[in-house]
Amino acid sequence: MGLTLTEKIIKDHLVVGEMVKGTEIGIRIDQTLTQDSTGTMAYMQLEAMEVPRVKTKRSLAYIDHNMLQEGPENMDDHIYIQTVAKKHGVYFSKPGNGICHQVEIERFGVPGQTLLGSDSHTPTGGGIGMLAIGAGGLDVAVAMAGGEYYITMPEVVKVELTGKLRKGVSSKDIILEVLRQCTVKGGINKVFEYAGDGVKTLTVPERATVTNMGAELGATTSVFPSDDMTKAFLEAQGRGEDFTALSADSDAVYDQVVKVDLSTLEPLTACPHSPDKVVKVSEIEGLKVNQVAIGSCTNSSWLDLMKVAAILKGQTVAENVQLVIAPGSKQVLTMLAENGALADLLNAGARILECGCGPCIGMGQAPCTDGVSLRTFNRNFKGRSGTVSADVYLLSPETAAISAVKGVLTNPLGKVELPDIEMPKDFLINDNAVVPPAPEGEKVEVIKGPNIKPFPLAKPLADTVEGKALIVVEDNITTDHIMPSNAKLLPYRSNIPYLADYCLAPCDPEFPQRAKDNHGGFIIGGQNYGQGSSREHAALAPVYLGIKGVITKSFARIHKNNLINNGILPMVFENEADYDKISLGDDLMIDNAREQVNTLKIALKNKTKNEEYPLLIEVSERQKEMLQSGGLINLMRSKN
Amino acid sequence: MGLTLTEKIIKDHLVVGEMVKGTEIGIRIDQTLTQDSTGTMAYMQLEAMEVPRVKTKRSLAYIDHNMLQEGPENMDDHIYIQTVAKKHGVYFSKPGNGICHQVEIERFGVPGQTLLGSDSHTPTGGGIGMLAIGAGGLDVAVAMAGGEYYITMPEVVKVELTGKLRKGVSSKDIILEVLRQCTVKGGINKVFEYAGDGVKTLTVPERATVTNMGAELGATTSVFPSDDMTKAFLEAQGRGEDFTALSADSDAVYDQVVKVDLSTLEPLTACPHSPDKVVKVSEIEGLKVNQVAIGSCTNSSWLDLMKVAAILKGQTVAENVQLVIAPGSKQVLTMLAENGALADLLNAGARILECGCGPCIGMGQAPCTDGVSLRTFNRNFKGRSGTVSADVYLLSPETAAISAVKGVLTNPLGKVELPDIEMPKDFLINDNAVVPPAPEGEKVEVIKGPNIKPFPLAKPLADTVEGKALIVVEDNITTDHIMPSNAKLLPYRSNIPYLADYCLAPCDPEFPQRAKDNHGGFIIGGQNYGQGSSREHAALAPVYLGIKGVITKSFARIHKNNLINNGILPMVFENEADYDKISLGDDLMIDNAREQVNTLKIALKNKTKNEEYPLLIEVSERQKEMLQSGGLINLMRSKN
Repeated sequence: MGLTLTEKIIKDHLVVGEMVKGTEIGIRIDQTLTQDSTGTMAYMQLEAMEVPRVKTKRSLAYIDHNMLQEGPENMDDHIYIQTVAKKHGVYFSKPGNGICHQVEIERFGVPGQTLLGSDSHTPTGGGIGMLAIGAGGLDVAVAMAGGEYYITMPEVVKVELTGKLRKGVSSKDIILEVLRQCTVKGGINKVFEYAGDGVKTLTVPERATVTNMGAELGATTSVFPSDDMTKAFLEAQGRGEDFTALSADSDAVYDQVVKVDLSTLEPLTACPHSPDKVVKVSEIEGLKVNQVAIGSCTNSSWLDLMKVAAILKGQTVAENVQLVIAPGSKQVLTMLAENGALADLLNAGARILECGCGPCIGMGQAPCTDGVSLRTFNRNFKGRSGTVSADVYLLSPETAAISAVKGVLTNPLGKVELPDIEMPKDFLINDNAVVPPAPEGEKVEVIKGPNIKPFPLAKPLADTVEGKALIVVEDNITTDHIMPSNAKLLPYRSNIPYLADYCLAPCDPEFPQRAKDNHGGFIIGGQNYGQGSSREHAALAPVYLGIKGVITKSFARIHKNNLINNGILPMVFENEADYDKISLGDDLMIDNAREQVNTLKIALKNKTKNEEYPLLIEVSERQKEMLQSGGLINLMRSKN
Repeated sequence: MGLTLTEKIIKDHLVVGEMVKGTEIGIRIDQTLTQDSTGTMAYMQLEAMEVPRVKTKRSLAYIDHNMLQEGPENMDDHIYIQTVAKKHGVYFSKPGNGICHQVEIERFGVPGQTLLGSDSHTPTGGGIGMLAIGAGGLDVAVAMAGGEYYITMPEVVKVELTGKLRKGVSSKDIILEVLRQCTVKGGINKVFEYAGDGVKTLTVPERATVTNMGAELGATTSVFPSDDMTKAFLEAQGRGEDFTALSADSDAVYDQVVKVDLSTLEPLTACPHSPDKVVKVSEIEGLKVNQVAIGSCTNSSWLDLMKVAAILKGQTVAENVQLVIAPGSKQVLTMLAENGALADLLNAGARILECGCGPCIGMGQAPCTDGVSLRTFNRNFKGRSGTVSADVYLLSPETAAISAVKGVLTNPLGKVELPDIEMPKDFLINDNAVVPPAPEGEKVEVIKGPNIKPFPLAKPLADTVEGKALIVVEDNITTDHIMPSNAKLLPYRSNIPYLADYCLAPCDPEFPQRAKDNHGGFIIGGQNYGQGSSREHAALAPVYLGIKGVITKSFARIHKNNLINNGILPMVFENEADYDKISLGDDLMIDNAREQVNTLKIALKNKTKNEEYPLLIEVSERQKEMLQSGGLINLMRSKN
């Protein structure tokens, strides 16, 4: 039986487990990337592992998120990342060099390699035939330190593309169509593998748009074959030697098949407030527009912006529209400056933003109140733009550009005369904004601004674990409760001591001080504790406050893993009724904790009430080891 | 006796008073400009005057300050300004079209005309031979409504330029030298008029750099003759018809002479934290640099950036430096995109920001903690960059560019091979980002976002003015006490009701509520009440809170004028000792107030203590009329 492309790459990188769908496997990581909003923590974690030099084939640190820099914290973070990268063998891409995923495709991605990135849109690399996966910062730090990355062996979905896109229809419309068919929940523990005759009609940047926004399916990743188109792209980037031809076996077996006929595809748009609320542009054409934003890691390639420039040339942006364009990389922007396309954009009245994530992550360009904003981005969650009342539509660069000129949402099909745009035979290659690591890292001084605080580490598990019940919370506590994230707290992501003062504050503002006064203790929770965002800081702040265990009726999966990774015992009541027996301030104790963790059953003593409650701790062998060591970093460190 | 150029222009525009130095004169205003941070209030004031269409030769509304747009407030302000401008006969320059002063010089400035702008760097227009003055928003609104602008008839300083700048020495060094000689206090009630053989060696953008930063002298304005260089510039802008030759008479008499020999001038820099702390670059060469920022209304012209591009071509920005460049206008940026210079900048690793004020006003690009930032801007006050601990040095584009490459402060003289850069024979002309006013303004709907609140207006002076002493404050209260301005409050500059809740809060947080509970009353202050920034909001918030009079030992000049403009009685104790007799909460009353104001003497009754205090009200006839009417706007309205 033949293999899918996904299975081939996994097979080449399998370190732990077997390729049985639904089971946990560990894979070797060839390349890693970080961006600045997750990077400071990831590199502090790497430092804590005491690994002098990364063990990957190549690791890259990009700056693309926090580039507005309204206070010193952002540039302090940039300098920390720059110096720690140089010391530990990581390439550093300076702010202005571009969005991590765009630059990765252009300059560093290698077909058939694995890439782990601390950004959810890392799957962009699948456009060039990488198995590219987004993960938390600690996972990326572990990979840099040479550790494997654990995933559930995925199902593989074949997306069969037939025919050829008409002019005015874009690869953005392909992924919008897949999202329409599969929804944002359709990709869990799946890899979307593109195949069929239509594939060969798509250039690498067009493929990258598809794999990038494949993240919105909730998929593990998406991947395209590596073929003649990939070869031409790599050669034009002066990297012909990185090419390998890769595709699924002809008799590969897929778990699911999705079909898209490119020839009949129409321009689509995702309506507010979800990437899968997809309709045809023609259905809602004429909607009055306040803002058009072009760029983001989804649609900021040379090809995307050349199309936009062709549409805008000689035109004027409508009076009622602000048009902003953020090119994806220094390479893209410089080439547009050289070939006249940038002048065409400017002449039409476009505002050119820096090469970075910008408005896609709410970093500026918030629409007006109740505004309609058309964006070539990948997410349109309510409020993400910075304006809660705004309606954001996701669509192609072609649709965005013609709508900016017309002032209303406009279907480009038939209305736009697009010239043939040939991909460059030679991209402009100048990597002078990428700082290579120092040959002798030990000589590099790491510069940490005053807002970057040492990273908290749990201690190895003690035989006796004791402390008070410091807080008792209800069902469905989210990571937003545990570690709030808002504009006020955002600049402090490198400062756990500061953030810790807001830990669980929405439930009880006195919790942080109480935890400090008592030198730590226990959190008592209800059902589904830790649901919501995967925020690692929701485990790190409790570590800083000395939390030794969290006892709940049940846990949300990712938060439970984060607790384990950071050496906090995640325990559930065997009898849910025992939840009601514990009161705030009760003295709790676990005897022989190290031994009990190995049995997966724990007896919790309530010394105040002279009671005992049976608890379960549901962890794998790997996770047991982490808990005994006081978390993954301590474990890694003990193995060095 | 001959006239200076300043006197000639004033003579042509004199409406009120006589040209006697030190006396108040009123001049007719030909053109006005606003920017967005002062503009919303100015246009609300214009609306309040009920003037359907501006009466100037040309009025312009620029958007250049709040372009980061982290929330809906900024774009809401843009849309308000765009619609109110269209309705009332004002040209609207869209965000991205450029910095007001740069665009004004390029496209709209006319030699010999007067320009009033609600931005302190309006004197930039002096580079093209305008009498261009910065003022408060209300003054600009009055000018738009056809009213004259009042200044003290200034002394005229002749700045005699001889010789010719060497390559590597810049017109920025001229104004730094004038600041070194005259200091930031040297220009009060003076106009700096440039003359001498050196003038004809300077292009219009070079002159504009000098007049722009002349604002730091505290001067009324600065002005250059209009000559062949001006003619060539206007012709290259397609505006030859706007040219008039203008210069001082050969026998003009000046009040002061300052001399600068361009031939021997060296590259200079203003050290932290004042524009007049000027030293030679050579004296502190070698200083390690974290950031270089090029742009701002001082140095963002085509010529400036062509020089920078010539220095950076083929080079790489030093590893330790972040270089950011904000071009001054769409015209500048598009021309650089067309001629390849922008590609040179990008290839060297420069980050290109939007055409706007940007980092000069702390809108992004805050340096790192304790960072050294070299900037081609005009102000380096402590903390203005967004980083309180940063050291900002002001210097020329040439010095900035070579230092960015070297990574340390570097004297360009002899170290830089600059090619001859000829001014363009034809600038790129495309005004499609300037929206003209509607022919029929009454049909235009003005759109006010929810953060833009109606503007408070005082009532005409009543015969009996009474109320409680709502607060008693000490000497030297600044406008920062009266109306704090910080990052939290900045988005609310169009929302006086919101801001009013912070009025005088640094002195007494309960004051705003107390004022509301009592339906207004009196403020009691000590010496020098209202010193500091000219912030109009420090009068507007008290109007909103119902403040009828402010009684102090003495007033700072500008704040006193702002109170009068807004219909609040500014009164001083005839006997300073009476200050101690008034307690918080005392019931105060002025009988026959309308009559008493005319006598300039007021008897204040303290009903609580059964006492009476003699007060003085030191105002001109014009100001009496304003107070009787309840402020300038009510007065204007009554005259329409």
